[in-house]
Amino acid sequence: MRDALSGLIDVELRPRSGETLSRQLYHQLRHAMLKGLLPPGYRLPSSRDFALQLKISRNTVSSVIDQLAMEGYLDIARGRRPTVAASKPSLMRGKANARSAAAKPLMSHWAERLRKSDWPVSNEGAPRPFLPGLGDAREFPRDLWARCLRRAARGMPVLGVPALNRPALQAALLRHLVEHRGVKAGARQIMILPSAQAAIELITRVMLNAGDLAWLESPGYGGAHAALEAAGARVCGVQLDQSGLSIQGRRDRPRLIFVTPSHQYPTGRLMPVHRRQQLLSFAASAGATIVEDDYDSEFHYDGRPVAALQGLDETGRTIYVGTFSKSTFMDIRVGYIIVPESFVDVFEKAQRHSGQIASAPVQDALAEFIEDGHFAAHIRKMTRLYRDRRDHLVRALNAVAGDRLTAAAPSGGMQLTAYFKPRCEDRAVSSYLSKMGVTARSLSPHFIGGTAEHGLFLGFAAWNEREIDAGADIIGEVMRRWPDS
Amino acid sequence: MRDALSGLIDVELRPRSGETLSRQLYHQLRHAMLKGLLPPGYRLPSSRDFALQLKISRNTVSSVIDQLAMEGYLDIARGRRPTVAASKPSLMRGKANARSAAAKPLMSHWAERLRKSDWPVSNEGAPRPFLPGLGDAREFPRDLWARCLRRAARGMPVLGVPALNRPALQAALLRHLVEHRGVKAGARQIMILPSAQAAIELITRVMLNAGDLAWLESPGYGGAHAALEAAGARVCGVQLDQSGLSIQGRRDRPRLIFVTPSHQYPTGRLMPVHRRQQLLSFAASAGATIVEDDYDSEFHYDGRPVAALQGLDETGRTIYVGTFSKSTFMDIRVGYIIVPESFVDVFEKAQRHSGQIASAPVQDALAEFIEDGHFAAHIRKMTRLYRDRRDHLVRALNAVAGDRLTAAAPSGGMQLTAYFKPRCEDRAVSSYLSKMGVTARSLSPHFIGGTAEHGLFLGFAAWNEREIDAGADIIGEVMRRWPDS
Repeated sequence: MRDALSGLIDVELRPRSGETLSRQLYHQLRHAMLKGLLPPGYRLPSSRDFALQLKISRNTVSSVIDQLAMEGYLDIARGRRPTVAASKPSLMRGKANARSAAAKPLMSHWAERLRKSDWPVSNEGAPRPFLPGLGDAREFPRDLWARCLRRAARGMPVLGVPALNRPALQAALLRHLVEHRGVKAGARQIMILPSAQAAIELITRVMLNAGDLAWLESPGYGGAHAALEAAGARVCGVQLDQSGLSIQGRRDRPRLIFVTPSHQYPTGRLMPVHRRQQLLSFAASAGATIVEDDYDSEFHYDGRPVAALQGLDETGRTIYVGTFSKSTFMDIRVGYIIVPESFVDVFEKAQRHSGQIASAPVQDALAEFIEDGHFAAHIRKMTRLYRDRRDHLVRALNAVAGDRLTAAAPSGGMQLTAYFKPRCEDRAVSSYLSKMGVTARSLSPHFIGGTAEHGLFLGFAAWNEREIDAGADIIGEVMRRWPDS
Repeated sequence: MRDALSGLIDVELRPRSGETLSRQLYHQLRHAMLKGLLPPGYRLPSSRDFALQLKISRNTVSSVIDQLAMEGYLDIARGRRPTVAASKPSLMRGKANARSAAAKPLMSHWAERLRKSDWPVSNEGAPRPFLPGLGDAREFPRDLWARCLRRAARGMPVLGVPALNRPALQAALLRHLVEHRGVKAGARQIMILPSAQAAIELITRVMLNAGDLAWLESPGYGGAHAALEAAGARVCGVQLDQSGLSIQGRRDRPRLIFVTPSHQYPTGRLMPVHRRQQLLSFAASAGATIVEDDYDSEFHYDGRPVAALQGLDETGRTIYVGTFSKSTFMDIRVGYIIVPESFVDVFEKAQRHSGQIASAPVQDALAEFIEDGHFAAHIRKMTRLYRDRRDHLVRALNAVAGDRLTAAAPSGGMQLTAYFKPRCEDRAVSSYLSKMGVTARSLSPHFIGGTAEHGLFLGFAAWNEREIDAGADIIGEVMRRWPDS
């Protein structure tokens, strides 16, 4: 077909190629014009002649020419042959030039810091013992959940008021949280977000300006640290005593205090009621917001779960953060917050502006899953299972490395901390264990300023007894050979 | 039972109340201690005596006392009666005081601006004609979609590598976008996010520092404006000519250029190929990133959809933004971006830090929905339907208000712009129409600096012919009575 276009390009149309003839012609002409093979001003045959030469229908040719004209590749006018559009020559010829002189787009300072950030700790491929923060998705009632999702998708209202936070889920979740976590709130104070991390980020952006002081427990949660730094806050790590965050004698006045009172992250400590009240009083006098991250408090093994700090707050300054990722399965990616009544409107607007909205079918399915009792039943079942796994891991560690590690059973949550005796450099141990096939996060990087303790931070929830034994054996072997420092 | 606690409080346990006896006892004791009715230092009866007096089992009493001790309400020691824990008296007594003196938490400057922001335009309850940006969810094949969701939920891998962006969806979406939108990318360059707005926010945060110059089309998209301002950018509205964003003669050097080349938002204009190439050359010389928002380009009525600008970029500076909210249904809340290869890692880290992750079952279900051809079939069906609705709205407007409004059929998208003849104040018309039951967004607020044009911005996709006629009749009536300005 070289003749059709003065020998400049060779149009080849393959009838049985899977792509329509018009798409093939379109792509070949467009490519030739972009590459300059059909130069500006070049006149194509009339659509009639072109069709005859290509042995295809005139309609096909016409539609391709119309399309290319609409996109600006061809100039067409009634009664004249289509002409390759004049480009801006300086720009077209300067293209290779411009590319070599092209300035690479730069990233923001935030993105540059992200690149170097060591949070989150990069995972070693597929999850393995003892990755913390992970529940056992193998035990999740997937068929029940799949049916809830299906019903939610089929039954979805199609032209109702589009709700960022589905009222059915707000209501069901509130009932659950009032009963099991002792929160006090109205349903509209609950916001559903794509993850707890999204929630923490949104809170820091709504509550903090760059330069504001924020307190974080030390050791504390790396995700909160990252979010606070992204908001430009001055992050101050506050030491723990046996009751958690230690306020005594502090004279600085934070704008925000991030705490994990039910199971301190990562030590697992419980903040008792008096420290909670002291913290609330302190926050009230400082005008601070308290962010309570209740990340895995569904699982409490000795006695009942401790009620949330939020329920004690009578001054409307506590924002409660929760997630379904621990209580259902990691990849569900749904978190939630309870904000003070006076902040509901601004948080809804912040959701819209930041696009932090969870998929409606998932929200509706969760509402049914909770309402029908499946959620509470799953938590009950997992609580029993995780308690056994916790005890199993403690026993296994004592058996294989009781002389080198002190591991106490936490009263709740999904991970435990094992301290060295005598002291070892935890990053070195963690890195060596990683090579040996075991994930054992080091404790010391969780400290913000001050002297770091060393230890291993081990998730027990996602692993069965056989997996726990296999992991513990490796830890035992490594610890036996580890030199005293 | 007043006697049990020296007459200080009256424990009342109701066997058939739905709450267990131990929960009732726990709540009543906790409440009494929080309120100071059982003062610090007060000694409870021994669990044996207490159980006898309450006529319940000693185990029940013991478990409640253990729980309250763990939470710090009671002090317990072997062989001694449980004692109400000493609180920090200054804090406890100072509580009412602290509350009155409590400083209310302050919001960030960003949040204060959000409060006053007029984006997004608040909706008038349930969606109604002619809300723009909305597809007709009534036509969505919900049963097919529900089956995909169910299969995704049941078939989900449980202990695989947790992927923020599910490879199956990345691959399926890429094939779709290569064929229908002419993009050029590898699958891992695709990031799945909770919405297009989340995508635009994330891009601005990764690419811009506070104070950086960003270009936005004027008139342009309010969501992009909001995101750019949130990132602290200096936003410059750049005028349009018939080919879209007009670069000619500009000497300022933006770090980011936000464009909607396939259907300019809100005018519907198509940016022809030469302007695209000019824009790419300009961006290369300026070191700018181009953000291409391809928000509703699946729907193209005259000829085929115009290929994306991203496919023309050979310098790796274009970030493509798309969404499933227009092509499936609004509440699905899944958006996506294609980032240059060199930015994949930092965007993945930004996703983790900001928690911008879409629910895995929804991602997997979308992958199947696309792979099985349902997605392309739905778009084909909707394209025919929306084309008819577009034509119907144009005819209806010409019939009822042809002397007051010029409405041209856009070549694609879900909305059209109707200009006044003679000029009217569009906000006044829009606000009056809203009271009359019709949503008709005003055009002038979309302008950023410069002289605003006035007109109405009308969505036609979500409404059937009867609904379009009813809405158009109201517009006709209002326009007939509207005084010339």
